[in-house]
Parts: sequence; C-alpha cells; structure tokens
Amino acid sequence: MAKQISSTNNPLIKSLLQLKTKSRERKASGTFVIEGKRELSLAIKGGYTIETLLFYPEYFSESEAKALERYHIDIIEISQTVFQKLAHRDSTEGVIAIVKSKDHTLDDLKLHNKNPLILVAEAPEKPGNIGALLRTADSANVDAVIIANPKSDLYNPNIIRSSVGCVFTTEIAMATSEDAITYLQNLNFNIFCATLQDSSPYHEEDYTLPTAIVVGTEATGLTQIWRDASTKNVIIPMQGVIDSMNVSVSAGILIFEAKRQRNFK
Amino acid sequence: MAKQISSTNNPLIKSLLQLKTKSRERKASGTFVIEGKRELSLAIKGGYTIETLLFYPEYFSESEAKALERYHIDIIEISQTVFQKLAHRDSTEGVIAIVKSKDHTLDDLKLHNKNPLILVAEAPEKPGNIGALLRTADSANVDAVIIANPKSDLYNPNIIRSSVGCVFTTEIAMATSEDAITYLQNLNFNIFCATLQDSSPYHEEDYTLPTAIVVGTEATGLTQIWRDASTKNVIIPMQGVIDSMNVSVSAGILIFEAKRQRNFK
Repeated sequence: MAKQISSTNNPLIKSLLQLKTKSRERKASGTFVIEGKRELSLAIKGGYTIETLLFYPEYFSESEAKALERYHIDIIEISQTVFQKLAHRDSTEGVIAIVKSKDHTLDDLKLHNKNPLILVAEAPEKPGNIGALLRTADSANVDAVIIANPKSDLYNPNIIRSSVGCVFTTEIAMATSEDAITYLQNLNFNIFCATLQDSSPYHEEDYTLPTAIVVGTEATGLTQIWRDASTKNVIIPMQGVIDSMNVSVSAGILIFEAKRQRNFK
Repeated sequence: MAKQISSTNNPLIKSLLQLKTKSRERKASGTFVIEGKRELSLAIKGGYTIETLLFYPEYFSESEAKALERYHIDIIEISQTVFQKLAHRDSTEGVIAIVKSKDHTLDDLKLHNKNPLILVAEAPEKPGNIGALLRTADSANVDAVIIANPKSDLYNPNIIRSSVGCVFTTEIAMATSEDAITYLQNLNFNIFCATLQDSSPYHEEDYTLPTAIVVGTEATGLTQIWRDASTKNVIIPMQGVIDSMNVSVSAGILIFEAKRQRNFK
C-alpha cells in the first residue's frame, strides 16, 4: 500500500508547487517537476532519477505506480483535493513527479560521433523558442545542444512542455559563452555564427567537419565574443520586406543544410 | 483640430474592443484593429485602407496624425482614460486603427514570378505558428501563402503580432483545400506535400519549376485530398528519439531548400 497525502497543507505539496513556479527553488533543491505519463517515461528513458511520484488513482492506476517501484521511487497516492490543487492542465494525467536535475556541464557531454554537429544557442529567452530549438535538435539528431549564457533554467515547465520532452532526450550543456568557445576550440570544431556582419550565404559553406552552428537572440543577435571566435559567419539570404525569422526556424534551416551535406548520416 | 473621444462609453470605443476580441465582429464588419506605429505603417505599405485612426497625443503627436490625413483617414484624438481602456499592451504606442479587411481570394493573388514558389498551410491552428509561417514566407520572399481550410481569421490580433507585420506584406489567400488544389493544378504547379506516407527525402526533389510546398498540422498532418493531388510526397528525414518538429520549422527547411536550388533568385 502506497503512502498517501490528502491535505493540500502537506509540506511536500507546498514545496512541489514552489518547484513548479520558482527557478530559485529548483536550483536550491536540485530538483524539478514533471507532469504526465509521456514526460515521465521520457525522463526515465533519458536517465533521470525520479525521486518522488505522486499519483491520483482515478487517472493513474496503482498497478501503473507499482510498475515504477523498481526505479526506487518514493510513490505517494494523493487525494482528489490534492490532485486538483496540483493539476493546472489536462496533461497531468494523474501523475506528477519530483525529479533530480542533471548538471549539464560541458564535461558531461557525450559526443559519440567522429564528426559531431552541435547547435549552440546564445541567451535564448522565450521558453517556446528553447522548446522548438530542442525539438529541431532531436529531429536532426544533433550530437549536442549548448545553451550559452542561459537566461533561464532548463527545467522551467514551459520549456519542458514546449520541447514535448526533447529536453530529456537531447545531450544538453549550459555554460558561459567563454567556456563554450574554449570547449569547441579545444575539440577543433568549425564555428559557424549566424550573424549579419561579414558573413557568407550559409549554403556556400562546408559543414561536413566537426561543426558548431551558433544562433543568437532575435532581438540582439550574437555577442562579440562569438563573432571573434567564428570560423566563418553565415547568413540566410533574406529577400522579404520585413526579414525577420523565428530563431528556431533559422536554426532549423542551418542544421538541416548541415545534415543534407552529410547525407543525413 | 481632430475629433475627440473622452468617454469609454462611446459606441466607437465599444465596437473597437469587440473587433479586437471577436472574429465574428471582424467578419460582420469587414474590418479589424491594428495597434502601434510599425503595424500601421506596414499596413499602409501593404495597401490596406485605414478607416479610422485613434491617437493619444502623449505618445503619438498631432503632427504625426496630421501626416496621415492624405490617406483620407478619419482621425480621432482620445483621452487618457480611453487610451488606458484600449491599450492592453505596451506596443500600442498611442495609436490604434480600424482597418478594412482584404478578401484574400485565390483570384486576387498576384504572382509576379514566372516560376512561382508558394507555401500552403492546411488548417494551421495556433496563431503563433501562423505568424512564424508568415515570417518565414516573407524572409524567403515566396510568391504567395495559401491558407487552406483556415481555422481562424487572418486578423486575429495574435496572428498580426506574431507575424511582426508580415501578414500585411505577404500575398495571402484563404480558400478551401479543394479550391486551392484546383487553382494550383490549373497553373501547372508541382505540388509537394510534406507527409510521412509514400514520401521521398525532401532534398532529393527538384523545386525549380512552379512549386507549391504544402504542410499540414502537427497533430494530424495533411488531409487525403492533398495527398491525392500531390505531385510528390516529401519527408524531412528524422533521426531523433521524439521526431517532432514545429510546423514553421519544417516549412522553413522545405522552403529554403527550394530557395537554395533556385540560387536565392
């Protein structure tokens, strides 16, 4: 018989609500919250440690919960009142978990490919853009994503949701731009910075050697340090009236041109 | 001296608030609302007829308003109270206008290019996705965008905003999928449907003849009628764990592959 929580005043429930909304709490505790069966299974697949799992038996059966015991998860049944307090959206599906964060250091990155392709995003701001970047990175099966000078923590619920779980399945490092550049230079990456200044059309460059494609923010582009470290600046030729592309679209065009040149291998 | 409105109970103010929130009101009146200087100037550039312009003199000067008189716009000064009622967001910049809708029929489309490139999106749902699609279409300077089986009207404020004004500068038609297919077939377009079934890798196809690239929704893809009309189905090879790409990213990759093959001409 699982443990039970039936009061919304329970300290665990209170701290879980804090974890959902406050980056500071996530950092201090080294944990974050996931909601829904799909996110749960992707996090397990991605090697995350689930610390605590709360389930509401009407939507997530006790046998489903029992099946997770082999992961040494603290499993707790919650009452309808507690569930309604926690479930802000339909996709909670009766299951909410507290999960141990990963460190996401550059040293942790595992590059299995001899000729790796890495996507670097400097200071991406909107959770929806980060989610879309991670979806593209997953689809292209890039070797890693580096978020340079991150503006938010990776476990913001809006990033998890908009990434449709790709946040759990992609190799991701968070680092300063300086450290990211040192890392890439030490491994002899060609660094292609998407920027307007002194740039060549992207489709005239060769992305078949170890390649990092670096994109900045829609508002201010890349910082000078990236342009100084750039092997080559590249630009997507634009011919419209407004010429403003979503950063995840630009990244997709550049990454898939690299994939095309590599024959999608 | 411009006309003035100082009461939030003024019928024009009430109907303007309805226009902002209700698609039904926009359809019935054949008008919609734009906010901010940039949107205003892009709408004028795009050939839209501004019917009424309301300005709050603290942010939009009377001389700026006067400069617009040559467009035969009904110009009205509003009080601070009225402005605060109307201005839901910072970017209103002291100016709000009621603008005449365009019809966006297929017959209205002007294709200037001998070898046109058209983006078709079937039933796109999220305003943010439509906005991003229009931004990509503008950047690539495609000849037209056709929204097939539209789910919402084009002048939803969230579409205008997320398109950063590209909704005003792009040739756009709204039509049923049936009519769109007839239109494209009559003009001998090659129709490339982005779909999983019976498809070739997108980068192996030739997009240098008159080309329509057709994308469906992320949830359900394209309807059968498009697949039946398809010259060739194409797929972006995906190699990830989750393989879910944002529709505007997929469209960007396909459109820019076509542009690359056309040497960005």
